[in-house]
Amino acid sequence: MQKEQTIDHALRATWQSVAKMYNEQAAKHNSTMAMAFVLLNIDIENGTPSTALGPLMGMESTSLSRILKNMEGKKLVYREKNPIDGRGILIKITEFGLKKRNTSKEHVLKFNETIRKHISEEKVNHFFEVTETINKLINEKTIFNNKPTK
Amino acid sequence: MQKEQTIDHALRATWQSVAKMYNEQAAKHNSTMAMAFVLLNIDIENGTPSTALGPLMGMESTSLSRILKNMEGKKLVYREKNPIDGRGILIKITEFGLKKRNTSKEHVLKFNETIRKHISEEKVNHFFEVTETINKLINEKTIFNNKPTK
Repeated sequence: MQKEQTIDHALRATWQSVAKMYNEQAAKHNSTMAMAFVLLNIDIENGTPSTALGPLMGMESTSLSRILKNMEGKKLVYREKNPIDGRGILIKITEFGLKKRNTSKEHVLKFNETIRKHISEEKVNHFFEVTETINKLINEKTIFNNKPTK
Repeated sequence: MQKEQTIDHALRATWQSVAKMYNEQAAKHNSTMAMAFVLLNIDIENGTPSTALGPLMGMESTSLSRILKNMEGKKLVYREKNPIDGRGILIKITEFGLKKRNTSKEHVLKFNETIRKHISEEKVNHFFEVTETINKLINEKTIFNNKPTK
């Protein structure tokens, strides 16, 4: 249908469109997608080591630090010394953060349910298979070897 | 298979993984994915109005300005007054930029071909159908209406 429809373009454009939607939704709650994403990634029982959050979210530590500071200001999270690792810091969720986390979770559910209502399960499963194949081939360095080119 | 596999998570994680791969590949050529993406989006015959590039790429104008400045420094692109719109600026590609553009194009092709070699056409088509459905539902505001919430 489209001229030059590529898999990478579909991924990028669709993710950007989802991110824009989530950010608009978050803005109504005086929040951002990144903050919602942090809330969804924190272990609500034990907290999560601050150093583990970046890799979990695929985010650089400088961006993450800025977001966490902002979230502390909003009383969504707080810091606590890690009882296991004396030098480490745990990020823990507040009662208010937990409430906001539930709202975010509802939005994620609503998004996924709505999509699934409009397309067959088989097609959604194939979508997941394609994304898994992409991740696998990238991780195995099948697409580009990492030797320096001529 | 995975606990809580969501469509948005698969999109985000896969796009991040693709972006990382493209950036690693671009780095070997002393470039970035964003620069490659600009080269691929410029009209090689007539140039592209600077104001049109942002929306084409889904990028904010401040980020784009920084990238274009960098690309001018590397002699990949140059600015020219728009003959149709006296106040407008066209971004045009240099000979060197064209060479780099072809390299980027080869990488995009190689990525897409490799994926398609490892998964059936039917599944790839279903992947595209799912991304089209997502974009359509978001554009039609079917998922979240934009009225302020209580």
